[in-house]
Amino acid sequence: MANVGVLGAGSWGTALSVLLSDNGHQVTVWSIDENEVNMLNEKREHELKLPGVKLPDDMVITGNMRSAIQGKDFLVLAVPSPFTRSTARKMSPMVAEGQIIVDVAKGIEESTLMTLSRQIEQEIPQADVAVLSGPSHAEEVGRRLPTTCVIGAKTRKTAEYLQSMFISNVFRVYTSPDILGIELGGSLKNVIALAAGIADGLGYGDNTKAALITRGIAEIARLGVKMGGKIESFTGLTGIGDLIVTCASVHSRNRKAGYLIGQGMSMQEAMDEVKMVVEGVYSAKAAAKLAKEYDVSMPIVEEVNAVLFEGKSPAEAVNDLMMRESRSENRSLTWEE
Amino acid sequence: MANVGVLGAGSWGTALSVLLSDNGHQVTVWSIDENEVNMLNEKREHELKLPGVKLPDDMVITGNMRSAIQGKDFLVLAVPSPFTRSTARKMSPMVAEGQIIVDVAKGIEESTLMTLSRQIEQEIPQADVAVLSGPSHAEEVGRRLPTTCVIGAKTRKTAEYLQSMFISNVFRVYTSPDILGIELGGSLKNVIALAAGIADGLGYGDNTKAALITRGIAEIARLGVKMGGKIESFTGLTGIGDLIVTCASVHSRNRKAGYLIGQGMSMQEAMDEVKMVVEGVYSAKAAAKLAKEYDVSMPIVEEVNAVLFEGKSPAEAVNDLMMRESRSENRSLTWEE
Repeated sequence: MANVGVLGAGSWGTALSVLLSDNGHQVTVWSIDENEVNMLNEKREHELKLPGVKLPDDMVITGNMRSAIQGKDFLVLAVPSPFTRSTARKMSPMVAEGQIIVDVAKGIEESTLMTLSRQIEQEIPQADVAVLSGPSHAEEVGRRLPTTCVIGAKTRKTAEYLQSMFISNVFRVYTSPDILGIELGGSLKNVIALAAGIADGLGYGDNTKAALITRGIAEIARLGVKMGGKIESFTGLTGIGDLIVTCASVHSRNRKAGYLIGQGMSMQEAMDEVKMVVEGVYSAKAAAKLAKEYDVSMPIVEEVNAVLFEGKSPAEAVNDLMMRESRSENRSLTWEE
Repeated sequence: MANVGVLGAGSWGTALSVLLSDNGHQVTVWSIDENEVNMLNEKREHELKLPGVKLPDDMVITGNMRSAIQGKDFLVLAVPSPFTRSTARKMSPMVAEGQIIVDVAKGIEESTLMTLSRQIEQEIPQADVAVLSGPSHAEEVGRRLPTTCVIGAKTRKTAEYLQSMFISNVFRVYTSPDILGIELGGSLKNVIALAAGIADGLGYGDNTKAALITRGIAEIARLGVKMGGKIESFTGLTGIGDLIVTCASVHSRNRKAGYLIGQGMSMQEAMDEVKMVVEGVYSAKAAAKLAKEYDVSMPIVEEVNAVLFEGKSPAEAVNDLMMRESRSENRSLTWEE
């Protein structure tokens, strides 16, 4: 049994808190939102973000950050990516030397092009920062449906410790040393989900979507490997696996925003309609910057940016992707003659 | 403009005939079924297998195999995999030295464990055998929805020639020298589609399905690479791409049979209900034999076989997959410390 602090009580933070509690750990959940803390303490369920999932009686919900951090065996950081750096900065004075922090959000900071774990390390240099990622809708984890994830950590010891904390008969956990590859896959997938949504909105079928997913992960992998990530992360659960789940989901905000754009809305109209942060819109810009910086060809990312920010018509963008010069699928494979 | 012979007038053969005709080629389609030939000549539409897609006036439909082969610039072999060897044997005396045959079906012969192109080469040693594969529902190609495929051929010259024949503004064609990898991905994916269907039938969610797809292609790739296929084919359109389309489709016979088994039917009941050949059932046996012969761990294939042929309960099979010893996602990645 471990003492765990979870920072952030959104759908993913709540689902993971319940999972850890199911596994016999003592969980303290912190939220910055006093109303949310009171509501959770009263109702013992997050009716808005994770309906139908009861919080165990011994789970502590608090607005006091210090009580969720100090003395905990490890911390789970589950705030949305735009708040990761500011939250980490607030946490820093309370975090002990070597204390483990598992980040479970995904994103790339547009100004610095840093992944979340690097932002956390910058703000909390004394922490041992790890990540958890994979194809995992919070709603399904909350309902105890079989799910797989990957823990990325700097040392095998930390990875295997966290694996033993999270693993259960419905939550299979693999370990990996490739923190960067895991984070890049998780962040950049939202751009491809936008593209898949656009294709759906245009009335295209499963063939088009499968092509966008497959070629999409290929261009993410090209960039990610050049940045130092491992190819295995992009072809694994945190890459293609997570991308598949996002593109299949009718709940994904990124896919939905893309769908509306494919149907003729502007980016702003689509974001207003979805009423939540559409991460892929920000990741699209970051991805384009990274592609330029690392000199990697990313045609799908380019076309998504053209549709989002230059008013290019979605149908024309798909057409331009289809009409690119014909070529071999992978230039590294060669014929004998 | 080329003269093309298409052998087989099922949904895929018909859709490709229309595509080639759209591209300006003169197409002759052969069917073994005299009723089908008469029906197509009369209605100019395959109402049963590709409804809504009109056949161009200049497309010739014939029951005379010789007239579909002799003098043609290339041939498309589109008969179902159980009939590939027998059809090739019949074709052999009519095929010219070096005549190109593109096989577009998928399968592994259970008795010999040979892919289709190898069976064709055995029966028609004078032919230049190539393959076409990728995420491509025939219905969507018939409706001119954007689709991507890969041509695999022994020489770059044949690959690029066929690419130029098939490519259009809605059908993007890549080339590859890896015929074996393309064929293994296309054949073995049906076993994973069965597993994905079983998970759906059990009421599991997108997380479980994405995990099965991702880990499924990983085990197919392990086997395929050991057999001599290239990893790029398994992570590309003919591997993960085709698997995604199959597992997403409500029309896939393999997924549907799996779904019914997940809901409690036996394999035989499910096959009776689907009323068509469920290729994954045969591929499952072939895959298990190959896994043994090449000494490769294929846990999903093993569990599918146990459910199909040993009466193991689907829920127990998924549970056993989830409870396997915890491990790293990819053993080739190592920690520094």
